[in-house]
Amino acid sequence: MTDALPYASRMSGMRASEIRELLKLVDRPQVISFAGGIPDPALFPAEAARAAYAKALAEPATALQYSVSEGYRPLREWIAAEMTRDGVAATPDNILITAGAQQGLDYMAKALLSPGDTVLCEYPSYLGALQAFSAYEPRYDRLRLDGGNRTPASYLGRAGGAVKALYLVPDFANPTGLSLGLDARHAALQLAEELGGVVIEDAAYRALRFSGATPPSLQALDVAARGGLDASRVVYLGTFSKTVAPGLRVGWVCAARPLIARLTLINQASALHVSTINQIAMFELVRSGIEPLVAAARAHYHRKRDALLDALERYAPGLTHTAPEGGLFSWATLPEGVDAAALLERSLAEVGVAFVPGAAFHPDASGANTLRLSYSLPTSERIEEGIWRLAKVM
Amino acid sequence: MTDALPYASRMSGMRASEIRELLKLVDRPQVISFAGGIPDPALFPAEAARAAYAKALAEPATALQYSVSEGYRPLREWIAAEMTRDGVAATPDNILITAGAQQGLDYMAKALLSPGDTVLCEYPSYLGALQAFSAYEPRYDRLRLDGGNRTPASYLGRAGGAVKALYLVPDFANPTGLSLGLDARHAALQLAEELGGVVIEDAAYRALRFSGATPPSLQALDVAARGGLDASRVVYLGTFSKTVAPGLRVGWVCAARPLIARLTLINQASALHVSTINQIAMFELVRSGIEPLVAAARAHYHRKRDALLDALERYAPGLTHTAPEGGLFSWATLPEGVDAAALLERSLAEVGVAFVPGAAFHPDASGANTLRLSYSLPTSERIEEGIWRLAKVM
Repeated sequence: MTDALPYASRMSGMRASEIRELLKLVDRPQVISFAGGIPDPALFPAEAARAAYAKALAEPATALQYSVSEGYRPLREWIAAEMTRDGVAATPDNILITAGAQQGLDYMAKALLSPGDTVLCEYPSYLGALQAFSAYEPRYDRLRLDGGNRTPASYLGRAGGAVKALYLVPDFANPTGLSLGLDARHAALQLAEELGGVVIEDAAYRALRFSGATPPSLQALDVAARGGLDASRVVYLGTFSKTVAPGLRVGWVCAARPLIARLTLINQASALHVSTINQIAMFELVRSGIEPLVAAARAHYHRKRDALLDALERYAPGLTHTAPEGGLFSWATLPEGVDAAALLERSLAEVGVAFVPGAAFHPDASGANTLRLSYSLPTSERIEEGIWRLAKVM
Repeated sequence: MTDALPYASRMSGMRASEIRELLKLVDRPQVISFAGGIPDPALFPAEAARAAYAKALAEPATALQYSVSEGYRPLREWIAAEMTRDGVAATPDNILITAGAQQGLDYMAKALLSPGDTVLCEYPSYLGALQAFSAYEPRYDRLRLDGGNRTPASYLGRAGGAVKALYLVPDFANPTGLSLGLDARHAALQLAEELGGVVIEDAAYRALRFSGATPPSLQALDVAARGGLDASRVVYLGTFSKTVAPGLRVGWVCAARPLIARLTLINQASALHVSTINQIAMFELVRSGIEPLVAAARAHYHRKRDALLDALERYAPGLTHTAPEGGLFSWATLPEGVDAAALLERSLAEVGVAFVPGAAFHPDASGANTLRLSYSLPTSERIEEGIWRLAKVM
């Protein structure tokens, strides 16, 4: 068995993550996992989903057929109205339906990045975004925006190459759980303007706020400054994965119409379109209002976050960690020189607790002493038990 | 409204097809369309689909959740067994589930093509394949394999750059409806061996044979010659879009395990995975046997093909066209100098008949006097009426 095929140069940068392979082994019931980062299936609207698929299948000639690359128009209309409510006056022509926000990341990279172009992002950043971008062989530079601390934007060590994109998760970022304050948002837009780059706003967790006021999205600020969405250089990636369910693979891009037209061509060439039946079912699931689902998710994860923070305070009072106001993640920093990957091996072997070491989230493989703790899946009791166990090996 | 974003160089090659825009206008009921190329929804297993989704949703915590990038294991097992029956002894680890064969084309291009690499394909070739490949900026060279005529493989005018891939639709190709004979299949494999390229076998229509014997797939021939699938350099792209329904977006890649591992990383970075619920529903739809669906589709399209060929003989006896033994398409050649795009405009305006002009299927924009006729959607009566009308403007 050989792997001697004439691969493209991009493939040398795409390798299986050892951590991911290790974490495949944590499905044993005795393991308490803070690794997942996926929604709690207890929140899935099972009964409503049955009704939604039955409704979609009442018209099988539509639901089971090919459909347009732009996406199912009633769903695009619904999303445009939601975006408008969130400060971005949008029409359906500003919306492209994608297979989750992940496909939006891939399409934005495909649209913008030639080898050697530069992407600015925070270190750490969402691993899946780095994987999506890296397939197009960019360089990375570190963007420093101090979440909530009103430090002006700056970035360090420009690697060279045109800065094509600034990637940000302004609300409850994966992996840190941190959000950007209003000043940092303005500063990011200012920097993008100076550098000529496009801002990719990954809003995967934006709806999941527990406390504090919701700042305007980067796109809303940019639209207000420029007088309209079609003049904006911010691209908003949304998803139903964290508010409804991820298994349908339905998300969206909201952007200026000329860019949506380009991304639609990319969608046509890459996957034709998102599953027709899933788009119709998703529309049926959200058409009468997504608020009950969102409110339930907020309350649910709020309780779990509290359980995590309480346990950390009780059992690991010396550990530095974030206190997220929303989302699914907290981020912990071990003393300098302590290796989180080594800790994971010990933690799995000795106390059966899993988490994700932080280095994978850093384009420069720094952050060896950091780790991500997701509180989305375990019960509050298991969260407490898990942190108690973890404290024993730390 | 400006489109002045810092796009990657690949975007200059991605433009909206004028023809496609024109054909968006053919949905009026009085138009008879031979343009579509999509399955007849009369064949969709609506009742079975309702049962399949209900079954999948009996376990909502699985069906609505994220799942592994490789795909749903029971479906991969089922596909591996089908591939084995078709002459390619495969295991589930040789199978990756993709969002239709289109995503398989994109992923193969992503895995193999750097700018300037060469793809060999027949002129004409499937437009969607050319779109998928072109995003990775290859050059094209013309592959001449004379379908069924036992001419040895040869290719003309090598453009330079490493020949990374040979793209072929050996059975009832889109757009020509032609198939490769056994000698042409061997010749294609021999050429790929000499050039060091990977063979991408697009099997989208392979199951839809009306008449004649089914030759071994390119992959089956290569596996027999090399002693096993893991030593093969043929990649088989399969889909349920033409045998079950396209709206679920479920297809597969069958290939050597090291390549499947690479494509799985690409899937993780591009879209995470195919919709979980759709994979489970598709498994439920096919688990007890796909043969009744395939047999119904064969009989259905066979009747329609006969209607088309009869009408062409009766109303357009001078028109050169193919007589496909399966699939959804016939291919017609107008006299030299006659422009099919101009004919389409007249045909739509004067008699309300649509088809796809052939130039779009040619990487070098040749073939202006050719056109694709799909018989999948209109009834036999509308097919006859449509060809009668078309003959009036030709």
